[in-house]
Amino acid sequence: MSSSKDSLFLRTCRLEETPRPPVWMMRQAGRYLPEYRAVREKATFLDLCYDSELAAEVTLQPIRRYDFDAAIIFSDILVPLIPMGADFGFKGGPPKLSEPFDTPQSLARLKRVDSQKDIPWILESLSRVREALDPSKALLGFAGAPFTLFCYLVEGEGTKLFPKAKKLMWTQPKLAHEILSLMADQIGEYFCAQVRAGADAVQLFDTWGGLLHPDDFEEFALPYAQRIFDKVRETGAPTVYYVNGNPAHLPLQLQSGCDVVGLDWRVRLGEAAEQVPESVGIQGNLDPLLLLTDPQTVRVRTQAMLESVAGRRGYICNLGHGVTPPTPLENVQAFVDTVKDFEAVSNRDSS
Amino acid sequence: MSSSKDSLFLRTCRLEETPRPPVWMMRQAGRYLPEYRAVREKATFLDLCYDSELAAEVTLQPIRRYDFDAAIIFSDILVPLIPMGADFGFKGGPPKLSEPFDTPQSLARLKRVDSQKDIPWILESLSRVREALDPSKALLGFAGAPFTLFCYLVEGEGTKLFPKAKKLMWTQPKLAHEILSLMADQIGEYFCAQVRAGADAVQLFDTWGGLLHPDDFEEFALPYAQRIFDKVRETGAPTVYYVNGNPAHLPLQLQSGCDVVGLDWRVRLGEAAEQVPESVGIQGNLDPLLLLTDPQTVRVRTQAMLESVAGRRGYICNLGHGVTPPTPLENVQAFVDTVKDFEAVSNRDSS
Repeated sequence: MSSSKDSLFLRTCRLEETPRPPVWMMRQAGRYLPEYRAVREKATFLDLCYDSELAAEVTLQPIRRYDFDAAIIFSDILVPLIPMGADFGFKGGPPKLSEPFDTPQSLARLKRVDSQKDIPWILESLSRVREALDPSKALLGFAGAPFTLFCYLVEGEGTKLFPKAKKLMWTQPKLAHEILSLMADQIGEYFCAQVRAGADAVQLFDTWGGLLHPDDFEEFALPYAQRIFDKVRETGAPTVYYVNGNPAHLPLQLQSGCDVVGLDWRVRLGEAAEQVPESVGIQGNLDPLLLLTDPQTVRVRTQAMLESVAGRRGYICNLGHGVTPPTPLENVQAFVDTVKDFEAVSNRDSS
Repeated sequence: MSSSKDSLFLRTCRLEETPRPPVWMMRQAGRYLPEYRAVREKATFLDLCYDSELAAEVTLQPIRRYDFDAAIIFSDILVPLIPMGADFGFKGGPPKLSEPFDTPQSLARLKRVDSQKDIPWILESLSRVREALDPSKALLGFAGAPFTLFCYLVEGEGTKLFPKAKKLMWTQPKLAHEILSLMADQIGEYFCAQVRAGADAVQLFDTWGGLLHPDDFEEFALPYAQRIFDKVRETGAPTVYYVNGNPAHLPLQLQSGCDVVGLDWRVRLGEAAEQVPESVGIQGNLDPLLLLTDPQTVRVRTQAMLESVAGRRGYICNLGHGVTPPTPLENVQAFVDTVKDFEAVSNRDSS
């Protein structure tokens, strides 16, 4: 019987030789899909997160339409914080806390939770998807990185530069490290629960890590990513560490102990690959806004990207950030087709 | 008689040996200063730009308070586009065009202007400031880089990622290059007029260049920066090329022919300096949000930054982006004092 361990995605994570790179897209279960928008007409964003049947449905939609090599469970990085006491409202507008966690007292308001008991829905969604998903496809769990979650907790909402979070980090480093440490422990446990529930791999999203100077990244982001990956290693599931917004962090990202580094679109993939040891995989990194153009433009740029790392083991094709809602469906098809067609070309080259 | 040619800033641009680095701050004439807010209570933002007496006043305010080594003329990167037909409203909210420049027809709406005739006020402001400013201080002119201006022209307003501008760039590259080319010619001429009016040096702000993949930066940003610096070279005034948001662009930034590369806060200054040939100056790069902390934190981080390039010629101390409005005055003082005190230390080390 075939197992997802033999899926193209997991073989790539193990740096095995494969006929072509696997392909998936960050935020592939989302608003650019008419079938997703149809579900959302009858349910709120949080309904989808809390109802494992709906979550499984929207997780599987992009696999059905595009035959991606990996599914990523539908959720949001802020959702697991809600049972911890961070009442992020998702009421149509951007999520916002009624009271930010920006004082020593507020740390006591952050409840430690047990994923199995307190956030069971995502685990149920994972089990449901893993059961429905073909073994040739991998299933990814995910979480926000401690620094990124810290930004939202302290600021109370998304901003451009997170000045309050950074100020607290610099002026009350002990409190910052306590919050980050709690987050790291919780996410480590959460990832392990995700793997037990059916996730084949997990991705840590450091969406705001790029706003940090490397010295600050080294102190406030890296150690917590390391702690999480140390914990997940017990499960045997591969880990992807995506850091957005700062190519200068790649050397630090590589120190995290992740199996795969996720790159944003700000770098040349081939040049970044030269900095990554052969023992580490690479995921990325087409500019998601390229998918707003036309199929021909998408094909040309995707092809060039694939060629820049042709023959390298451990490469997972993806965008450099999440796909955006106005993306035309045929451009996603062109992206996927280009990767799948690359098989023939690379086979021809090597025969 | 002393001339601003012998100012610390210009000597540093010429890579001469100096007792300490010069220091100024991007957006130093601005809302963090109570004396600026007092002027703004009686005048709009555009009043300040159009009235050379008011512009000179707010340009000189930070010099009086902090004795910075350089003044930068008060204006905005979008203001010189107004006489070109881009009716950016500055009505309290963020600037917005009633009609974006996103069609081949709209290119015809972009008027070519003569700086001396059509935007004389900034030139008058420069002359007025240069006259009032001590010769030991340099006066900087500035402009937005063509790609950054293109982003605003096509999008019609500021956004996070400028999807319309990027889409046009990829799908109508000929139109994009025509707009960029026009901008480069206009800014080259504008910079030359600024120098004739009294600017000792000019800085080109590529605020959104970091959103580009290096291949796109190489095609849509770099050639236009090069054209501008080629033009300004005739004047003999040194040029600073500030690129925000993408440390991976540094090798391309260095190909622009600028005299000084301006770095944002996302990199270690010492590591970046290793990539910069000795023939090119470096400006940067303290995280502007560090100025929200306290004088002691500012001193420690500024000192570490200065030490990381100690002894290097051509280093200009600055923030990695503009100072933010809630910055406490004493933190700016700590920043300036640390640079000025560095003189004693570096002299002691070298004696």
